[in-house]
Amino acid sequence: MTKIKLTIEYLGTAYCGWQSQTNGVSVQDTVERALGGFFGCEYVRIYAAGRTDAGVHATGQVAHFVTDGQVNCHKLCLGVNTSLPPDISIVSAEQVSDDFDARRSAVSKTYVYRLYMSPTRRPMLDVDHAQVYKRLDIDAMRRAAALLTGTHDFTAFRKQGSNLVGTVRTVNSLEVESDGEEVTFTVNGNAFLYNQVRNMCGVLVEVGRGRFTLADVQTLLDGTRLHYKTLPARGLTLEQVFY
Amino acid sequence: MTKIKLTIEYLGTAYCGWQSQTNGVSVQDTVERALGGFFGCEYVRIYAAGRTDAGVHATGQVAHFVTDGQVNCHKLCLGVNTSLPPDISIVSAEQVSDDFDARRSAVSKTYVYRLYMSPTRRPMLDVDHAQVYKRLDIDAMRRAAALLTGTHDFTAFRKQGSNLVGTVRTVNSLEVESDGEEVTFTVNGNAFLYNQVRNMCGVLVEVGRGRFTLADVQTLLDGTRLHYKTLPARGLTLEQVFY
Repeated sequence: MTKIKLTIEYLGTAYCGWQSQTNGVSVQDTVERALGGFFGCEYVRIYAAGRTDAGVHATGQVAHFVTDGQVNCHKLCLGVNTSLPPDISIVSAEQVSDDFDARRSAVSKTYVYRLYMSPTRRPMLDVDHAQVYKRLDIDAMRRAAALLTGTHDFTAFRKQGSNLVGTVRTVNSLEVESDGEEVTFTVNGNAFLYNQVRNMCGVLVEVGRGRFTLADVQTLLDGTRLHYKTLPARGLTLEQVFY
Repeated sequence: MTKIKLTIEYLGTAYCGWQSQTNGVSVQDTVERALGGFFGCEYVRIYAAGRTDAGVHATGQVAHFVTDGQVNCHKLCLGVNTSLPPDISIVSAEQVSDDFDARRSAVSKTYVYRLYMSPTRRPMLDVDHAQVYKRLDIDAMRRAAALLTGTHDFTAFRKQGSNLVGTVRTVNSLEVESDGEEVTFTVNGNAFLYNQVRNMCGVLVEVGRGRFTLADVQTLLDGTRLHYKTLPARGLTLEQVFY
């Protein structure tokens, strides 16, 4: 048995997300079929580090699969990429030990959320950035980001209507960078609740707008839900999975 | 008579270029019709600083038009943008004096050419970057860029088959920056020959690959054509027009 670790980049715009769904085309299905083509079967089942939502991108999604016999990883990349659509690519492939598991072996994941501040649309950024219409207070967002860092009960940051038990997670780091009109949030953590990253960034945007104070952020961390917008999927990219 | 200067951003991927063509949809036509919708006529004729080719992008294309009566520039931006497709946006509009001409008043233009160095495709970069498969020698490209800077006869850098008389142009600056896998060429000049920017960057890539020496670049500047590839349109962006 040979176990292969794939690093996959995709523009999520056209997909219903990583995971196979009854409606819509998923990144997973598309990669599984392309691998099937390479190995001469219908599909090859792959197991990913994390399931990205509809419209979310990745530069460093990781997935593993097992196969019989030897695999030339370089030829695999080139061969599979020729049958993948332009918005998905196997960036690298490498053989790993039998005990590697893309999800369970992951130590942490880094997500990046990008936005731009402009009253008018910016077509060259819209692909992987959200738009906010007014300037945000970067320093205030940095102070709020420091509050969110660490181990907290993120129940007020999960998708509304979600009833998961066990909502304590650890955010290892949450950095806010700005360059001209562009703002980038870089979040690293071992595990995230559904919509947690988009919601944490959404709360930071409310702080940057002056709609939320640091006390409001603390209220959310204490488990009381306040009204704020979940940021759109297109600004979110799974950047790297650490093992 | 009121003269309005528009700054326009577009992702050129889906267009046959700036200029109206008999086949394909142009950025110009699309903007002219959207302006027509705003002013209640079929279209408003606009005059651009430069005609970008099919597939070339812009963050700072400039165009002007004239109209009767008063114009609220803020409302114009918002109104026209609602009827433009997602890949084109009026970034700003301002009233200018009657003697302003988007093309003739321009002092210089800055184009940016972006590429990434990777053996495998990078879907999140492909939108506005070209791909080269191997690492390029950045220092060698910088030395070649210094040679290309200044006033030269760029006849060996124009589109093949072009018979334009008068091929002397001035490149004010040509900078090569690299950040990880990404390389950015930033070119400023007062006027460029057809395909000159893509061809100058193509020559730099040949130098970076070790296929061309500085002596070869000098041969090209002396007017002898050598074989090299014109880089793809998708890496090129008209960044700014200076007045």
